[in-house]
Amino acid sequence: MSSSSASQAKLKVGVLGATGTVGQRFILQLAEHPQFELAALGASSSSAGKTYAQAVEGRWKQIRRIPSNVAQMPVYECQAHHFAECAVVFSGLDSGPAGPVEDAFRKAELRVFSNAKNYRTDPLCPLVVPLVNPDHMEILPYQKQQVGTKTGFIVTNANCSTTGIVVPLKALEEKFGPLDRVLVNTMQAISGAGYPGVSSLDILDNVVPYISGEEEKIEWETAKILGGIKSDKTAFDYHEQDELKVSAHCNRVPVIDGHMECVSVSFKQRPAPSVEEVKKCLAEFTTEAQKIGVHSAPAQAITLHEEKDRPQPRIDRDWQNGAGVNVGRVRECPVFDIKFVVLSNNVMIGAATSSVMNAEIALAKGYLSQ
Amino acid sequence: MSSSSASQAKLKVGVLGATGTVGQRFILQLAEHPQFELAALGASSSSAGKTYAQAVEGRWKQIRRIPSNVAQMPVYECQAHHFAECAVVFSGLDSGPAGPVEDAFRKAELRVFSNAKNYRTDPLCPLVVPLVNPDHMEILPYQKQQVGTKTGFIVTNANCSTTGIVVPLKALEEKFGPLDRVLVNTMQAISGAGYPGVSSLDILDNVVPYISGEEEKIEWETAKILGGIKSDKTAFDYHEQDELKVSAHCNRVPVIDGHMECVSVSFKQRPAPSVEEVKKCLAEFTTEAQKIGVHSAPAQAITLHEEKDRPQPRIDRDWQNGAGVNVGRVRECPVFDIKFVVLSNNVMIGAATSSVMNAEIALAKGYLSQ
Amino acid sequence: MSSSSASQAKLKVGVLGATGTVGQRFILQLAEHPQFELAALGASSSSAGKTYAQAVEGRWKQIRRIPSNVAQMPVYECQAHHFAECAVVFSGLDSGPAGPVEDAFRKAELRVFSNAKNYRTDPLCPLVVPLVNPDHMEILPYQKQQVGTKTGFIVTNANCSTTGIVVPLKALEEKFGPLDRVLVNTMQAISGAGYPGVSSLDILDNVVPYISGEEEKIEWETAKILGGIKSDKTAFDYHEQDELKVSAHCNRVPVIDGHMECVSVSFKQRPAPSVEEVKKCLAEFTTEAQKIGVHSAPAQAITLHEEKDRPQPRIDRDWQNGAGVNVGRVRECPVFDIKFVVLSNNVMIGAATSSVMNAEIALAKGYLSQ
Amino acid sequence: MSSSSASQAKLKVGVLGATGTVGQRFILQLAEHPQFELAALGASSSSAGKTYAQAVEGRWKQIRRIPSNVAQMPVYECQAHHFAECAVVFSGLDSGPAGPVEDAFRKAELRVFSNAKNYRTDPLCPLVVPLVNPDHMEILPYQKQQVGTKTGFIVTNANCSTTGIVVPLKALEEKFGPLDRVLVNTMQAISGAGYPGVSSLDILDNVVPYISGEEEKIEWETAKILGGIKSDKTAFDYHEQDELKVSAHCNRVPVIDGHMECVSVSFKQRPAPSVEEVKKCLAEFTTEAQKIGVHSAPAQAITLHEEKDRPQPRIDRDWQNGAGVNVGRVRECPVFDIKFVVLSNNVMIGAATSSVMNAEIALAKGYLSQ
Repeated sequence: MSSSSASQAKLKVGVLGATGTVGQRFILQLAEHPQFELAALGASSSSAGKTYAQAVEGRWKQIRRIPSNVAQMPVYECQAHHFAECAVVFSGLDSGPAGPVEDAFRKAELRVFSNAKNYRTDPLCPLVVPLVNPDHMEILPYQKQQVGTKTGFIVTNANCSTTGIVVPLKALEEKFGPLDRVLVNTMQAISGAGYPGVSSLDILDNVVPYISGEEEKIEWETAKILGGIKSDKTAFDYHEQDELKVSAHCNRVPVIDGHMECVSVSFKQRPAPSVEEVKKCLAEFTTEAQKIGVHSAPAQAITLHEEKDRPQPRIDRDWQNGAGVNVGRVRECPVFDIKFVVLSNNVMIGAATSSVMNAEIALAKGYLSQ
Repeated sequence: MSSSSASQAKLKVGVLGATGTVGQRFILQLAEHPQFELAALGASSSSAGKTYAQAVEGRWKQIRRIPSNVAQMPVYECQAHHFAECAVVFSGLDSGPAGPVEDAFRKAELRVFSNAKNYRTDPLCPLVVPLVNPDHMEILPYQKQQVGTKTGFIVTNANCSTTGIVVPLKALEEKFGPLDRVLVNTMQAISGAGYPGVSSLDILDNVVPYISGEEEKIEWETAKILGGIKSDKTAFDYHEQDELKVSAHCNRVPVIDGHMECVSVSFKQRPAPSVEEVKKCLAEFTTEAQKIGVHSAPAQAITLHEEKDRPQPRIDRDWQNGAGVNVGRVRECPVFDIKFVVLSNNVMIGAATSSVMNAEIALAKGYLSQ
Repeated sequence: MSSSSASQAKLKVGVLGATGTVGQRFILQLAEHPQFELAALGASSSSAGKTYAQAVEGRWKQIRRIPSNVAQMPVYECQAHHFAECAVVFSGLDSGPAGPVEDAFRKAELRVFSNAKNYRTDPLCPLVVPLVNPDHMEILPYQKQQVGTKTGFIVTNANCSTTGIVVPLKALEEKFGPLDRVLVNTMQAISGAGYPGVSSLDILDNVVPYISGEEEKIEWETAKILGGIKSDKTAFDYHEQDELKVSAHCNRVPVIDGHMECVSVSFKQRPAPSVEEVKKCLAEFTTEAQKIGVHSAPAQAITLHEEKDRPQPRIDRDWQNGAGVNVGRVRECPVFDIKFVVLSNNVMIGAATSSVMNAEIALAKGYLSQ
Repeated sequence: MSSSSASQAKLKVGVLGATGTVGQRFILQLAEHPQFELAALGASSSSAGKTYAQAVEGRWKQIRRIPSNVAQMPVYECQAHHFAECAVVFSGLDSGPAGPVEDAFRKAELRVFSNAKNYRTDPLCPLVVPLVNPDHMEILPYQKQQVGTKTGFIVTNANCSTTGIVVPLKALEEKFGPLDRVLVNTMQAISGAGYPGVSSLDILDNVVPYISGEEEKIEWETAKILGGIKSDKTAFDYHEQDELKVSAHCNRVPVIDGHMECVSVSFKQRPAPSVEEVKKCLAEFTTEAQKIGVHSAPAQAITLHEEKDRPQPRIDRDWQNGAGVNVGRVRECPVFDIKFVVLSNNVMIGAATSSVMNAEIALAKGYLSQ
């Protein structure tokens, strides 16, 4: 590699909430990234002033070790001046601090890619699942204009359980036209609740049929993500999905990583596509992220399983480094048209991988140099 | 108690498949039953000739000990002459041997209450969930006439995952008229697969989105159970439920006992009943088994949970000794009318308790003295 | 029962820390106790002023429901004047508040039976496993004299992992004389850490080979419990066990309730007792609590298992309502003399049951009327 | 690479029991091996005649997919003529067939590296843990002479639970001289029992304190492995370890992969080495496999953990691809001299990795060209 070429210099990036569960995943994704270079870490005031290794002592719960080039980096408070040299800031903040901190970073002209829920509903902020709707980033110029920044903006990614289902739903809609009804039942991994998160006494030999706010998120996030963006790039076209009805049952199950979701779907199109047509459509689904060839994009957006009892979280969640989704058991539904099972890795494509891939796409499409 | 009264003498009963998972539950249910007295035990030829304690050595997986009055009972092969003095035989046989053995017992004039699936589809055999459709036993005189027996008949009970949902569905149908569509997603306990059953390598930190034959069973058993019996008592009225559509997604989860089921339902009636009306209906549902006051009937057929995260298998499965069902999270469904969660104890009301309660009802209604 | 007899009136008792994990167990043990009557409940200031049902809403994690006669009882702060009419107070307090609160209650002339660790090391406070050393309560008159109370005292019970092993060790010592060396390896249930306690991310598909302070507790509590009390009843005779060496490895495993402990032991006596002699000794061990016939005493102090793979926590922990201990796999040890496995129910005999049984013994021996 | 150089051509190897749990691991280890090339697969007659993909359909339980260059390979019965071109055969056979099959392969002049237990006790067969005693392969010329073969021999590797402890014990013995006493308590993963192996009903929310034959294996395998080989290379020197006493308690716990072992050890040397000396010795331990630089050798034979609660199976088992062992919590033992915790990956260094590393060492030392 030619080290003198400016075009090949890595972009400096920062991570907010770097010591938390999602933050640790950001660290691992970014430590050896070909385009991004970890330059600044932010966490709560109790961690500030420590090295990263000190700050996560006893809380680093990853199978991979702390990257050696990160262990000795200093941890700062989440104040924008510590991140001044960063082209991009990834936020793994909890929803408590995320609202004001991310806004302050945006106002300080930083580009924020956030895994937090706070700005997902904001009409100026794109809610982007990188394998589904990166075109929603076209609203960014208007967002900057409205909030009065030159470069600062916020891009959010979706809730982990939404992410899994919108990938196949997008594939189906793109091929067979508008969907009519979707019923989804989730069986979600404990890592979705962070650390310490779910008490072992609540989940061992048990299922908890409730996750606060989760069903609502799936129901409305799906409409925003599958909807278009208006031609003047100033708003999302929620009305496009006005007739799509989504209902979710959300459950927590004793699984470490990997959200399983049973989906029944009906189409507007009559006759509905056949099982074979649906399988072909899912297996062949190719996304813009793949066409551009961004670093974190999976070879296959959707891995279609033909075995009768797959996908399964323990065996399939790490396929393609968790960057794609797995679909199996595609079959006719006696009540809807088609039913199938989706598995997505909630800590990868369902969280940090989505944010990073969104930034990779933004880089490829020029949003980071505007 | 007057020991001289013949009417108070206990009825002698037998258990087929006595050493298996369901058989062990029958033993526990019957060892101290006020109306039934365990008189004969049947198992495979490898167990025959042993005492019960010897036959289940290393395979007795119950928290309660082998009842002392059963431990020394001899185990026979499943041949009718060993059960000649029994008024009733309970069958916990696997589906392999169940077909011919249960038929042979019936022909030998024994009354068989079976947990096996073999005769559930038989147009002459009632498929009875005791909290739902004990009236289906009215076909028994016709069954006996057709097979040419005087006293011998077969009554089956439903699959464990069907049992959980038909109880609330029956309550709703009885109050609000015909149902239109039902979508159910199960999260089923490992004990449903018997012993050794599910390999620990398949289920620890995992969900298996497939149980052989289970979805089909739920889809058609529901129609037979919720349907009526024709006025001449010679057939079940499947057509009554012709318009009811049921779709099931079945999953195995790492839970010992207790099947969780997420249910979405729509009614024919317009406007559909409200959430409050549905809750009231479920909480007040009273069954014939309760009215008769049979021994194993629960005080409440349906326990309605108001907490936002209940029922849960580990905490709620043993409520009422597992003889009722638990319903929670009754709320509006954006796609159907109403959605809720059901928990039923698959090894109790989902298996042995159903068979025993069916026999108790049969006794109370005179079917055992005909 | 003659309701007029004063001797048969129940003693009023209170529970401190009533909303916590141990407190909930106290509630269940005391709600229908033949000699004790729940009269006052104490918890933190955030619970004070609520009914018990309100105070534990969302935190009641027991399979049994809140006893109906307790649900509407008021919860007080842990101040002695709210407990003035109580003859006994049971403490399920965390070690944080337990120190000053229990001392204040003692000074207010209340008799405290505590599950907390704070006074276990106190040279005036008996550390009593009810199946092992209730005679240590003979120090109570001296304790009262020293702290200047007339009726107030503190009796502690042991750590849950200590409790399991001292029962068989006491049986062996009583029969075969002093022990020489004990090595114990624990596999402890998650309920031992309270609620929320152990994060599910730390224990699912995992073992944690460390429990803070646990190994030290086993090592010294064993010596205090197995040691005698001096003839003048003013001190415990630690020196009696000076030569006993105990070493513990403590591990947390993904089990709800029930601590398993693998024990190797050598005796001073030469030749050491045989495996058969040890088995006989354990099976026949009878304790003072049983001889007195107190309410919570198990029929067998030690249940000896002859099966090669028992005891097991899930199957054996609730035997005798968890009030005894289970011992199995007694065999020769190539390094020590004998090795075996112990299972004790950490939330029953390892916690609340010990406190309650200690109070029952105290009542029977007259310590509650002094 | 020069493809013409014979010295760089890969050695053809075969796998016996290729469809089983251990066999699948062999496939993954060998599919891209720099020195070995998978050339023949053997399994039971029910698999023979199928492609490998067909033969393992529904039984491939690995997270990695079947290697594409293996999927279409034919599966043969385990008869030596199908393996004629193989320089080495790896055996993942069950102990049932392993005895006669491995002997037949040896007699057919094949070099067998076996994970089965059958020949571990054979006085002519080396029992080699590659990080401990590869010098035991010096007996191979004598083995061949005695069984009358020119090239055929059998090398075994150790039981998975033995493997974990002998690595640190070897390090200690090498540095501090003979060991005196070892007490080990295992908490073993379910994958150690193969597939389907342990029933989920036996292990969920449970510990099973018994694994058939396991304690005996640890007790005698340790002596053979830590013992030397006589100077004339015709026998192992068991007597060298005559005074070493080993006692094991073996337990099965609900963990997928990774055997945890709590070890207490005393030395002959007085005074015993200090905790710091032991830590230094373990961390610096370097093995012949590492010095030679064989492909599968880990960078560190022993990873020493300083955190108070590590190693843990879920987090640490895949470190170094499971080829080394993890030791933590090194501290003084009140009964022995030192105690510590060992974690080894039972499906990697505890099984297939050991066999493959043994063959790599044999290749490097010339045993495959004799």
